[in-house]
Amino acid sequence: MPAPGMHSGVATDEALNLSMSASAVPLFEAVCEFIANEVDPITEEFYALGEGRSDRWSFADGQLELLDGVKAKARAAGLWNFFLPDADTGEGLSNLDYAYIAAELGKSPLAPECLNCSAPDTGNMEVLERVGTAEQKERWLKPLLDGRIRSAFAMTEPDVASSDARNVATSAVLDGDEWLINGEKFYISGAGDPRCEIMIVMVRTSPDGPPHQQQSQILVPMNTPGVEIVGAMQVFGQDDAPHGHMHLRFTDVRVPASNMLLGEGRGFEISQLRLGPGRIHHCMRSIGAAEKALELMVRRGLNREAFGRPLARLGKNTEVIAKARIEIESMRLMVLRAARAMDLTGNAEARIWVSAVKAMVPERVCAIIDEAIQVHGAAGISQWTPLAGMYAAQRTLRLADGPDEVHWHVVGRAELTRYENDHSPAVPPAGERGGVFSGP
Amino acid sequence: MPAPGMHSGVATDEALNLSMSASAVPLFEAVCEFIANEVDPITEEFYALGEGRSDRWSFADGQLELLDGVKAKARAAGLWNFFLPDADTGEGLSNLDYAYIAAELGKSPLAPECLNCSAPDTGNMEVLERVGTAEQKERWLKPLLDGRIRSAFAMTEPDVASSDARNVATSAVLDGDEWLINGEKFYISGAGDPRCEIMIVMVRTSPDGPPHQQQSQILVPMNTPGVEIVGAMQVFGQDDAPHGHMHLRFTDVRVPASNMLLGEGRGFEISQLRLGPGRIHHCMRSIGAAEKALELMVRRGLNREAFGRPLARLGKNTEVIAKARIEIESMRLMVLRAARAMDLTGNAEARIWVSAVKAMVPERVCAIIDEAIQVHGAAGISQWTPLAGMYAAQRTLRLADGPDEVHWHVVGRAELTRYENDHSPAVPPAGERGGVFSGP
Amino acid sequence: MPAPGMHSGVATDEALNLSMSASAVPLFEAVCEFIANEVDPITEEFYALGEGRSDRWSFADGQLELLDGVKAKARAAGLWNFFLPDADTGEGLSNLDYAYIAAELGKSPLAPECLNCSAPDTGNMEVLERVGTAEQKERWLKPLLDGRIRSAFAMTEPDVASSDARNVATSAVLDGDEWLINGEKFYISGAGDPRCEIMIVMVRTSPDGPPHQQQSQILVPMNTPGVEIVGAMQVFGQDDAPHGHMHLRFTDVRVPASNMLLGEGRGFEISQLRLGPGRIHHCMRSIGAAEKALELMVRRGLNREAFGRPLARLGKNTEVIAKARIEIESMRLMVLRAARAMDLTGNAEARIWVSAVKAMVPERVCAIIDEAIQVHGAAGISQWTPLAGMYAAQRTLRLADGPDEVHWHVVGRAELTRYENDHSPAVPPAGERGGVFSGP
Amino acid sequence: MPAPGMHSGVATDEALNLSMSASAVPLFEAVCEFIANEVDPITEEFYALGEGRSDRWSFADGQLELLDGVKAKARAAGLWNFFLPDADTGEGLSNLDYAYIAAELGKSPLAPECLNCSAPDTGNMEVLERVGTAEQKERWLKPLLDGRIRSAFAMTEPDVASSDARNVATSAVLDGDEWLINGEKFYISGAGDPRCEIMIVMVRTSPDGPPHQQQSQILVPMNTPGVEIVGAMQVFGQDDAPHGHMHLRFTDVRVPASNMLLGEGRGFEISQLRLGPGRIHHCMRSIGAAEKALELMVRRGLNREAFGRPLARLGKNTEVIAKARIEIESMRLMVLRAARAMDLTGNAEARIWVSAVKAMVPERVCAIIDEAIQVHGAAGISQWTPLAGMYAAQRTLRLADGPDEVHWHVVGRAELTRYENDHSPAVPPAGERGGVFSGP
Repeated sequence: MPAPGMHSGVATDEALNLSMSASAVPLFEAVCEFIANEVDPITEEFYALGEGRSDRWSFADGQLELLDGVKAKARAAGLWNFFLPDADTGEGLSNLDYAYIAAELGKSPLAPECLNCSAPDTGNMEVLERVGTAEQKERWLKPLLDGRIRSAFAMTEPDVASSDARNVATSAVLDGDEWLINGEKFYISGAGDPRCEIMIVMVRTSPDGPPHQQQSQILVPMNTPGVEIVGAMQVFGQDDAPHGHMHLRFTDVRVPASNMLLGEGRGFEISQLRLGPGRIHHCMRSIGAAEKALELMVRRGLNREAFGRPLARLGKNTEVIAKARIEIESMRLMVLRAARAMDLTGNAEARIWVSAVKAMVPERVCAIIDEAIQVHGAAGISQWTPLAGMYAAQRTLRLADGPDEVHWHVVGRAELTRYENDHSPAVPPAGERGGVFSGP
Repeated sequence: MPAPGMHSGVATDEALNLSMSASAVPLFEAVCEFIANEVDPITEEFYALGEGRSDRWSFADGQLELLDGVKAKARAAGLWNFFLPDADTGEGLSNLDYAYIAAELGKSPLAPECLNCSAPDTGNMEVLERVGTAEQKERWLKPLLDGRIRSAFAMTEPDVASSDARNVATSAVLDGDEWLINGEKFYISGAGDPRCEIMIVMVRTSPDGPPHQQQSQILVPMNTPGVEIVGAMQVFGQDDAPHGHMHLRFTDVRVPASNMLLGEGRGFEISQLRLGPGRIHHCMRSIGAAEKALELMVRRGLNREAFGRPLARLGKNTEVIAKARIEIESMRLMVLRAARAMDLTGNAEARIWVSAVKAMVPERVCAIIDEAIQVHGAAGISQWTPLAGMYAAQRTLRLADGPDEVHWHVVGRAELTRYENDHSPAVPPAGERGGVFSGP
Repeated sequence: MPAPGMHSGVATDEALNLSMSASAVPLFEAVCEFIANEVDPITEEFYALGEGRSDRWSFADGQLELLDGVKAKARAAGLWNFFLPDADTGEGLSNLDYAYIAAELGKSPLAPECLNCSAPDTGNMEVLERVGTAEQKERWLKPLLDGRIRSAFAMTEPDVASSDARNVATSAVLDGDEWLINGEKFYISGAGDPRCEIMIVMVRTSPDGPPHQQQSQILVPMNTPGVEIVGAMQVFGQDDAPHGHMHLRFTDVRVPASNMLLGEGRGFEISQLRLGPGRIHHCMRSIGAAEKALELMVRRGLNREAFGRPLARLGKNTEVIAKARIEIESMRLMVLRAARAMDLTGNAEARIWVSAVKAMVPERVCAIIDEAIQVHGAAGISQWTPLAGMYAAQRTLRLADGPDEVHWHVVGRAELTRYENDHSPAVPPAGERGGVFSGP
Repeated sequence: MPAPGMHSGVATDEALNLSMSASAVPLFEAVCEFIANEVDPITEEFYALGEGRSDRWSFADGQLELLDGVKAKARAAGLWNFFLPDADTGEGLSNLDYAYIAAELGKSPLAPECLNCSAPDTGNMEVLERVGTAEQKERWLKPLLDGRIRSAFAMTEPDVASSDARNVATSAVLDGDEWLINGEKFYISGAGDPRCEIMIVMVRTSPDGPPHQQQSQILVPMNTPGVEIVGAMQVFGQDDAPHGHMHLRFTDVRVPASNMLLGEGRGFEISQLRLGPGRIHHCMRSIGAAEKALELMVRRGLNREAFGRPLARLGKNTEVIAKARIEIESMRLMVLRAARAMDLTGNAEARIWVSAVKAMVPERVCAIIDEAIQVHGAAGISQWTPLAGMYAAQRTLRLADGPDEVHWHVVGRAELTRYENDHSPAVPPAGERGGVFSGP
């Protein structure tokens, strides 16, 4: 029997049927049309309005109106909350179908939010839907599903290697019927948005428990006393205001005991639930980013001449373009394969597939964007193309939700496990050695 | 509408259903069992017998008996001639189903021939089945399908860059009702086998015709007077006798006019037909070779210790293993995708997919085998493991049936073609430039 | 005879004596000390002051006072204008000696200017010193050498591929005794600095002349009417204000005929003169940047733990560190080798060496910084380490002063030229082929 | 003070004077001439004679006569035993001067032996010269220096990971005044040569001693009873007969106590002495191999046409050639730098430099040869060019004398050691964090 996940060379069942379902096709087409007709036309205006604003951590006059207008249209058209499979709300698509749509969303900086499919809200909504109490759902899930508020997820800490989640140091101590939280978090994306009202915070509740049961996840409203925004972390010099990647300090922050999600010591369990989809959603969108970069590279390569030929036909450039296309197609198939595995076997069982795409995709997409930059010359690093911003975003992904190294390790360890108890030597021992491999 | 081939991000139809068909599942399972029970047990003996033979260009006593015994069992079990889709003979599988089986064949040096699925016979049989006359089929296709004789395909020439097929220089001149052939070919694989009776030879028949109609393909029996084996070409120092990669000289070789395949000047047309399947069959088997290399790497890595840990857990080795696994899965999906494209749209339409896998797979499989060698230390380059031979075979593939560069070029050119007539500039021209991408 | 440049395997003369000269040793040591004692202590304060300023394109109160204080000390200590070899002023060092010092300057963002060795002033001063008239020297070179004003070099244009310098489109037409300049330039580094008073501008003066004599270089004071700053170009989202990389428009800009440098149509000649040193100075500083990145990577790797070990000892990290060290040492030697070649044979003769280091160094330094970022986790892309800014700077270098591709081409073409007229075939022709290489 | 080895950015002394000494220049020129006039002309004949021989493990009639004739001329011309610096015999060159000559030797398969500079004799002679007794020198060193006999070095074992030298399992037990040796070794290069008379064997003498004092090195004449050649190990399918890479078994082999080198338990000490020069000699010759591969690549690339252009100007090929040239020059400088370090500080102190070049050079030279193969098409893997054999040799080097991984580890560990006791954090701790790096 093949180990769960990646190791089977054959898939006799449906695991390799990676086609979009018939029912999703009209949705997919509607999304493509909606982005072209509704989102792309407001994108430049949205950011141009933002350029002139006086306070980086608010929206400029007119920005939210623009955005909310498009969101309302999307919702009315049923292009909304695609990300949540098998939800009671009935809205979500299968991971496989969503993968096709998310790749389209990945080509546009505004599209994900316009369709209420943007991180970190999607992961937070999924957690609330799966493990939230009725009260928690009413209070936070509902407005999130409606796109009325936004949210954040506070996990990474500045003073420990957060790649090892057991290092989480922010403490939560039960004090009567309240949790008392102290600690520091950074790179809390979206926490700068004035609409962000709620955070899920990873805390250490049981420092003396077994290593994987010391952590919990807890709901902390942004406006709770003691929650302080220390500053904005930058990404390659940009603060992505007003969304922001905030540096937060928790000083004697008190929340009701009922804000605990799922139960004390079950933080890792929730992470398993959340990080699978979160990671693959990122990778789905990365496919779209890579497609966009390749398109820009080819267009520029055909439209600029040097030394008597279009850049695209000079030196290695045609091969660079070919390699990008091949990389994109192979990443796309891997993402679809992982999404399909999640649909068929559940997030836990499919986690090795998810780690495989998380380890594979952002690094290669960075490389493709980098090549696109090179073909653009100085314009490639400028504000005249989206490439530099796309690079920063994909480069960040190599660190977010587990750095590449953690995911390589997950995949490698699974491979070792297959053979670990099988000590038949790979090379025949002395005395049994022939020369059989002198043949072809 | 997406361009033919690779460019669509969506496949609403069946193009991405990469599952094995239900009817092929029992065949696949039977093949795995057959290799384990019948082929693997004779492999070491087969090559050991060969070690002692006096003439490199014959088989040793007992070798053919051993092989023919297994072939007879395979044929009786219906595990035979899988490679030929939609043939009148009714034997072949779809390219997709065959891809799964071929990957298994690629793990064993003898399995392909045992199931009558070995190159270059498969390509030759496909050509004869598709374009041969009734007489040609009776004379050559039948014994090939029966596994009674073997064949060769003579294309590459020593004195020109054969990557550009228009360079073919071996001439064929019609002299009465015979073609008179003169020229030199090398790396004619299988031409050393005493059972090889027939060759398909690429010749130049119309040096003054349009560039792609100067070449023809013609049947030349090995024993035709004037066909001379000049010597055996080596592959990294090995001659792969008795199969061999022969250097041939054609001196006033005469064959009947009726030996011409399809018609004078249609050599390229036949190549299109043949090379698609030939290339993808190679790549399917390469997946199996990569799986084998990874298995050997992991087993060795777990069974050897240095500096107090198993090699597999030292330094970068776990990551090397993880990357190999991810590469293999992505190559597997790409090969299945290309096979599916051939099934659905035909070889010509799917040629960009075929070039994509031919450009992608052998180079990466070489890299995986090379890593496996490194983990094995000196044993990795020795006759005690199959790795050095596997490396040589995969390295050769990067040159055979079109070097990597030709295939990158096919894929890159297809990408350029999509945008070539669309001169909208990638970067807005002066005067329309905002700063829209200073946003995230 | 070896071709000039790179091709000799032997250097019997002094070409491979890469040691610092005895006379430069005390200067080198003084520079190291000066940076540690004078520059490093003001760096944080200098940038912190800048954070609070109201106008991005000016300095904040106190910033220039801080900087000028250190510059005065440097000048008093004789640590000034090292970059100019064989100058009448007697100040410069040999390229080889300067390479050692420049590597130290490359570790600090402020050090180059503190010692009056910062781009693009160094290149401009070299041009003025080599080809300027007495009057030009008095008016512009003197205050530059004194560090009282700053300068810019305007070459790249937004609407053409500037990698092919023949594409320069900004026109200069002689109108009476004035040149009338029209056109657009972008990424003009330093043109945002309020102290920037003079530009050297590459213009097309003779559109009908031979391809390499159509261009000229001309002095244009920043405050000339018609010179307009259209905006600030960004580098990965940063504008590097107030230095800036400006987008300029020239509308009927008039300068006296005497502002022409060297003579009409001699722009390429000046480029040869300027770009050699400019490029290698960048690469020298890049070595320092790589050293800094490696130091940060190792320190972080030793001071963070995950999964029970310091990051530096997890997985592939020790090897990553080793490879960075080896890359740095080999780049350092190549830069020294190129600098030595310039000293011994002149800039023109050494141009292939210069292209070799320009093609080699920035790409590899980017890779080293990227690895350092990965070891830092999120902090690596943040404002808490210099890594993201260093990455952006080195990535820019792969495009500035000729993109990588141009330099690979220069080196490759030189290699081809060695053999081009020598048509002895690499492989013996048919008939003379033995099997000599079946031996070891 | 910089750590020993690699870490200083400055070399104020002679460490970076990498020029050949004046006295070596005429020797170098004589060697180049000698190879061209005496060695190259016999090379093809020497191997052609070998093709026809009946016994792979002897020389054919005429082979040794040919070789010995050239050796006699070399010795008479003083082109002999260059490898041994500071020897009492007075013959050797400095490591730096020898590096230049060894690169020339590396271009020819016969040249090293013709000048009595071939492995493993050079290492064995160095060991005997440094630590041999007068008697050992008379008996073994003298005929080796005269080129009358050949020798082998037996270290690697088939059943343990020999990358960790502490794993050596072949035992030597003192029995009266004899050592009794039992064990198995493989890949003992040169042990197949009928002229090979003496081996230095690494044995475990003190299994209970401290880990690095358990091993000893001992002289074992090839014809000692109990020394059995089990078979010939292959390298990518080749046995390199009659030199050979033999698999040996030691069964109750007895040698006099006086055959122990330096003293019981001092095997590692001798390894330090031997492996430094051995490794760098390999790398010096690898530079020559890379030069040869590049020359072949360029010549072939200029002399073959496809798609209307010489291969060298198609696609990425010019860049491939440029990168090879840049790699070669940087490797050459690194090898010279390491050789110079050995000359100035001794082998032990320079060991990190030696590991750096051993880790760097063979892997990159493999890559260059691989590119040369690709440009040659099928001829590149054939016996018509030396490329396949060169590839196998360089690939083997990545495993011999310590696999790459061991050497990366040595270099990486040295880098870590520099900072290990310095716990100042790389990123300022919370509370001291500014935003200083938001500047350029």
